Amino acid sequence: MQRAISSARDVIARCQLLAKCTTEPGFTTRPFLAEPMHEVHALLTSWMKDAGMTVSIDAAGNLRGCHAASRPTALRLFIGSHLDTVPRGGAYDGVLGVVLGVALIELLNGQHLNFNIEVIGFSEEEGFRFGVPFIGSRALIGELDEELLGKRDAAGVRVADAIREFGLDPTRIGEARAGTDAIGYFEFHIEQGPVLEDLRLQLAVVEAIAGQSRFSVSFRGQANHAGTTPMRLRRDALAGAAEWICVVEKEARSTSGLVATVGRVDTEPGAGNVIPGLVRGTLDIRHVENGERKAAVQRVRQAAEVIAASRGLSVSWEQYLDQPAVLMDASLTQVLERAIARSGYPVHRMTSGAGHDAMIVARRMPAAMLFLRSPAGISHHTAETVLEDDVAAALTAGLGFLKEIEARGA
Amino acid sequence: MQRAISSARDVIARCQLLAKCTTEPGFTTRPFLAEPMHEVHALLTSWMKDAGMTVSIDAAGNLRGCHAASRPTALRLFIGSHLDTVPRGGAYDGVLGVVLGVALIELLNGQHLNFNIEVIGFSEEEGFRFGVPFIGSRALIGELDEELLGKRDAAGVRVADAIREFGLDPTRIGEARAGTDAIGYFEFHIEQGPVLEDLRLQLAVVEAIAGQSRFSVSFRGQANHAGTTPMRLRRDALAGAAEWICVVEKEARSTSGLVATVGRVDTEPGAGNVIPGLVRGTLDIRHVENGERKAAVQRVRQAAEVIAASRGLSVSWEQYLDQPAVLMDASLTQVLERAIARSGYPVHRMTSGAGHDAMIVARRMPAAMLFLRSPAGISHHTAETVLEDDVAAALTAGLGFLKEIEARGA
Repeated sequence: MQRAISSARDVIARCQLLAKCTTEPGFTTRPFLAEPMHEVHALLTSWMKDAGMTVSIDAAGNLRGCHAASRPTALRLFIGSHLDTVPRGGAYDGVLGVVLGVALIELLNGQHLNFNIEVIGFSEEEGFRFGVPFIGSRALIGELDEELLGKRDAAGVRVADAIREFGLDPTRIGEARAGTDAIGYFEFHIEQGPVLEDLRLQLAVVEAIAGQSRFSVSFRGQANHAGTTPMRLRRDALAGAAEWICVVEKEARSTSGLVATVGRVDTEPGAGNVIPGLVRGTLDIRHVENGERKAAVQRVRQAAEVIAASRGLSVSWEQYLDQPAVLMDASLTQVLERAIARSGYPVHRMTSGAGHDAMIVARRMPAAMLFLRSPAGISHHTAETVLEDDVAAALTAGLGFLKEIEARGA
Repeated sequence: MQRAISSARDVIARCQLLAKCTTEPGFTTRPFLAEPMHEVHALLTSWMKDAGMTVSIDAAGNLRGCHAASRPTALRLFIGSHLDTVPRGGAYDGVLGVVLGVALIELLNGQHLNFNIEVIGFSEEEGFRFGVPFIGSRALIGELDEELLGKRDAAGVRVADAIREFGLDPTRIGEARAGTDAIGYFEFHIEQGPVLEDLRLQLAVVEAIAGQSRFSVSFRGQANHAGTTPMRLRRDALAGAAEWICVVEKEARSTSGLVATVGRVDTEPGAGNVIPGLVRGTLDIRHVENGERKAAVQRVRQAAEVIAASRGLSVSWEQYLDQPAVLMDASLTQVLERAIARSGYPVHRMTSGAGHDAMIVARRMPAAMLFLRSPAGISHHTAETVLEDDVAAALTAGLGFLKEIEARGA
């Protein structure tokens, strides 16, 4: 499919061009509605208009380009992803899904299907500026409420003010909400992990987005002199925490599909010659089955209690995230799988361990998602990349997906 | 022994009075030759003079009080400890040993023995101000050289300048050196650990001061997304470090007399949702046998290599302390044991896990050391304390020690 390959090259070039829209020269740093988002909008708007699309920006800062259906009363398919980045992020996380959406319209070559296609570039997904992710997709499903609009960034600017400073009217947020004509939502995204590369696969159908539990976990013992306190008289908080970290890893390794991570530990007092009296750690546990996730949390929590009791330590837990798993729509996902199979690619299903806009939009309409392989599993980093062949495969499968929906009779 | 008990009460009261000499009101913070050291010297000088002692301050800032022998050509026993404290330290660490020395002279009640007794309050032991410990005792053994005098504190002040600012002449450091008339050195010190309390003992004879090895140990893996990286594809530096910390503890628990401590770990990047790519930790290993200590270091180092290799991590080591064990003098220690036994107290020998002035002075003359129980093992803290009965026991044993030396014919 020569067409898709040459488009793939363009898609990558466009992503690299958009990566230059940044608040931090030399890196790609693009928070929610920061100044360089204007350039991103301008570039995407020009490509959308060249493809014959009607372009607007909603009050949440989402860029929306519409490719009209062949008939006026048709339904609407959303294709989207996000335009913001983490600080010093990559050129493909989010942006690739939007650029691929525009490329699909170009590949239609002026053809109008029996449904409208709206390509949407969400203004915010990463959650860095306001500590709240998914601001763009929440607006699409009508969940960007007053509380969210009142959140402040590090400089004290509220979401509503950021919207106003960008030249938009936050009182019109309600108009961003998708109508009742939605068929569904489709998102291309890089995998941001090493699974597809490890399996030597280009694409994967996301069947669900894992649920997440996050905790702060503290072990408290007794700080003491490292030289004068014999081993048997110690209450070493770090030795207890280390024993528990080993249990957490073992638990995750022995439970299919579970990932569990202790990402940070801090020791107090934190001197080389003092036995740690207090260790604060983090725990992040994810699984596609909420029951499995909660059971795993229970097991590692109980293990912590047992370890603490055997060492004269106390342990305390504070949960700060309990996000259920989100299933993609079974029917729309089957349509996507058929398109992949007919395009000649192997059909592989996987769970996303990371959150995505599709997870939010799925509350309101059927959602489906396609992953592209991430070389070396690298993301949220300047070295993030994507292979041209994989982009071409995604375009071919995506075009097949549109044809399947057309054939189904939207 | 009513006399020792009433003296014990005075000793404690004096230590509490000296604890008020501080650079930080409400705490006891007394670095090397800081302003409040003048008050300490004035108080101790008045008590020494009242006891008939001749008092001087040497060029290293050591306070030296001499109780003359019954005959002019006699030899000299040093009794000492240090007068500086850690920041926000306790009232007894160091100071108690000096105050007990003065109290012994008082208990002699004007009697002169067949040897001189010089009570010495060392100016510096903790190493906080200049990052180098034992400045006072190094001067006594003639090891306070130009290099040491040139060390600078955080404010850029050199040791020699601090001496000059205190009103002393650093060019006269050589005169601080003990002469050839030394019989030996005796030090009272609080245990600073929980061993005696655990054994329900008041006193212990220190037979040796453990050697110490200290290292920085780093485990390097690959930072990655905590949600998208399956367990089997991780190179988690913290999981590896945790496994190793468990081995370190097990090694120490199974080797008699060994203490091993990981006092600090730092995780990078240190976010709850990112697999740690780098962990830097500390390792402190102590044993009274240098061979045992080095063998233990080898075993935990090899364990780190094996763990790292099995997990695709790399491990690196940097040693920053390798201090051999120091034996107290066998003969002088036997004299001390005889005095304890004759005073009616059980004789218990132990190793000191912490360093003390006796360790330095032992390079030059026979040294012996007596530990007093530390309630709850607490030291280097405002809550540091000592029991009156234990102080009385130390005084009785100390007086017995002087009599034994007199009887031996110094």
